[in-house]
Amino acid sequence: MFIIEKKDSSSHGRAGKLSLYHGEVLTPVFMPVGTNGPVKSFLPYEIKEMGIKIMLSNSYHLYLRPGMDVMEKLGGLHNFTGFDGNILTDSGGFQIFSLSSLTKIKKDGIEFRSHIDGSKHFLSPENVVSVQKSIGSDIMMVLDQCTSPDISYNDAVKALETTTRWAAKSREFYKQTIDTEKQKQFGIIQGNIFKDLRKKSTEEIVSIGFDGYAIGGLSVGETKDVFKDILSYTAPLLPEDKPRYLMGVGTPEDLFTGVESGIDMFDCVFPTRIARNGTVFTNHGRINLKNEKFKYDNLPLDPECDCYMCKNFSRSYIRHLFKAKEISGARITSYHNVYYMKKIMDRIRLSIFNNDFQYLKKDFLKTYKDEN
Amino acid sequence: MFIIEKKDSSSHGRAGKLSLYHGEVLTPVFMPVGTNGPVKSFLPYEIKEMGIKIMLSNSYHLYLRPGMDVMEKLGGLHNFTGFDGNILTDSGGFQIFSLSSLTKIKKDGIEFRSHIDGSKHFLSPENVVSVQKSIGSDIMMVLDQCTSPDISYNDAVKALETTTRWAAKSREFYKQTIDTEKQKQFGIIQGNIFKDLRKKSTEEIVSIGFDGYAIGGLSVGETKDVFKDILSYTAPLLPEDKPRYLMGVGTPEDLFTGVESGIDMFDCVFPTRIARNGTVFTNHGRINLKNEKFKYDNLPLDPECDCYMCKNFSRSYIRHLFKAKEISGARITSYHNVYYMKKIMDRIRLSIFNNDFQYLKKDFLKTYKDEN
Repeated sequence: MFIIEKKDSSSHGRAGKLSLYHGEVLTPVFMPVGTNGPVKSFLPYEIKEMGIKIMLSNSYHLYLRPGMDVMEKLGGLHNFTGFDGNILTDSGGFQIFSLSSLTKIKKDGIEFRSHIDGSKHFLSPENVVSVQKSIGSDIMMVLDQCTSPDISYNDAVKALETTTRWAAKSREFYKQTIDTEKQKQFGIIQGNIFKDLRKKSTEEIVSIGFDGYAIGGLSVGETKDVFKDILSYTAPLLPEDKPRYLMGVGTPEDLFTGVESGIDMFDCVFPTRIARNGTVFTNHGRINLKNEKFKYDNLPLDPECDCYMCKNFSRSYIRHLFKAKEISGARITSYHNVYYMKKIMDRIRLSIFNNDFQYLKKDFLKTYKDEN
Repeated sequence: MFIIEKKDSSSHGRAGKLSLYHGEVLTPVFMPVGTNGPVKSFLPYEIKEMGIKIMLSNSYHLYLRPGMDVMEKLGGLHNFTGFDGNILTDSGGFQIFSLSSLTKIKKDGIEFRSHIDGSKHFLSPENVVSVQKSIGSDIMMVLDQCTSPDISYNDAVKALETTTRWAAKSREFYKQTIDTEKQKQFGIIQGNIFKDLRKKSTEEIVSIGFDGYAIGGLSVGETKDVFKDILSYTAPLLPEDKPRYLMGVGTPEDLFTGVESGIDMFDCVFPTRIARNGTVFTNHGRINLKNEKFKYDNLPLDPECDCYMCKNFSRSYIRHLFKAKEISGARITSYHNVYYMKKIMDRIRLSIFNNDFQYLKKDFLKTYKDEN
């Protein structure tokens, strides 16, 4: 299912190939996010034409809306959305943690209220496997208990224990009910910002045995230093021969940090979220099109980018679209940002083969400075 | 500039060809509307791939935002938006009438306040020609005084006189300042709902002499019967050998009514406006995707349509997109509705050549019933 084609000589970085039911995925890979199915503002052919082979969608959102009755009657998420590449689905652990109210962690699962209509729901590790079976996820994630970086050590221990217990139940139920050739399952490492707990969580989750391993509970409010410290500590503890996934990360800079720690997979709403606010990536950092200084600017979003939008539209025009609240503005910036992430990852992968990852990183960070 | 290729044997309908600076346009034609430049939710290539050769944009909106300084520096609307087909621009008369506050009709033009920021502006017939010169419109419209169907006869007379006086000034200024090979200019017939005034307006505007003639001040709140009555009375009064344009119309049914009265050109925001609300055209009338009954519906928007969206997405999925407030929902429905209008017009045009316009009309109206 996963082979490493080349290891970076200067770091933990690796270039590999992931074989999934809907085709091969070259790693490291950034997965754009389609919370409700589609990557926001995109039609599926636009994702495919960029060469993107895997995207992420959210079980929690799809479970609440349209609901699993619709999902099953319409033949799963691939048929429903028309995207025929791979889909990884989050388990909902993080969404319940961040979106729901009145959340109660119980022994056998999580009780919560929908952020849409306040209705009461209960999700167990087993439910979450079944939800992802209905969705038809190529990679499903186990239900975990995500925690905030400001909780106590003891609370972090308790959440870790819950996460491990649920992971074991998830794997067991997965083996009983899922066609393991079609759908893979990843475990999630928790442990908050405590290194000994990260190590303990890794040992426990790895001993259960999954098709891949994710680092959860990072990029949830901790400082950048803590993020880097925990990431660089945890990632190398994970099995060499399995794909490693850093959940909810990140920015272009983060891709470099993740890859050099040995991460193979990333996802984040960041590129499309900032795009809808008029912000785009360029090789010289992020720029916001609403800024007055782009009023007469005839340059493309990023003069060094070869995406369709950069070949066809000026900053001045896109600024106008945002000012006039035209949907096509968000289409253009979202497309560019997702393309930008794809291209950086392609360059990172190539640099691993060429033994010049460190050079690329230095070169990229030299010019990539965010606008103040 | 305009040739009639075939006249309908059963009505005033005609099929023709309009030669403009950005290419030939086959008539009758429906022009989708891009108020601020783009047809809402579209990128220009999507308009082109449908075979649409002319669209409409609004001088009033573009004058206020991004402003003519931006328009000129960016090389006109074609360069700005990337649409290289023909663009007809409205003069702003109707927008000032419907959107602005504190509007004052003065002898030499209109004073009004921007609906965006309340700033004070003055547009004269000459200004409006200059604005459309900066935009680079293939067809520019003269400034007119649009009136509501509930005004008195005397007020309608006054508005007509203003419209005629401004039309003469517009034409004069056009001849002095515009490259008449590149940019054409149409006059607008007013006269409210009074037939004698419609006749008088037609005579006066036609005697000034324009490249084409529009019927303005219809579809602005009058009853459907009055609309049809005034339309069928006025359209045949217009010169046979010039293109006739019915402004701000309309629905699929209206296209039949207009064509049989001898109209060659139409525009309306209706198809894209209702699309953004989840309503689409089908051969069996309009349907709204938010309706519960489409929850599990695996059919395309219109099972008889061959547009990209109907070939790829189900009603159930599109309903989900609207429920989840996903931008791609409006993309899909807008695309379908504009395509639908294009296809109806193509069929109408063909029916004129085939001498079966009446049959097509009857056949269409037999199944096209709006959902209650």
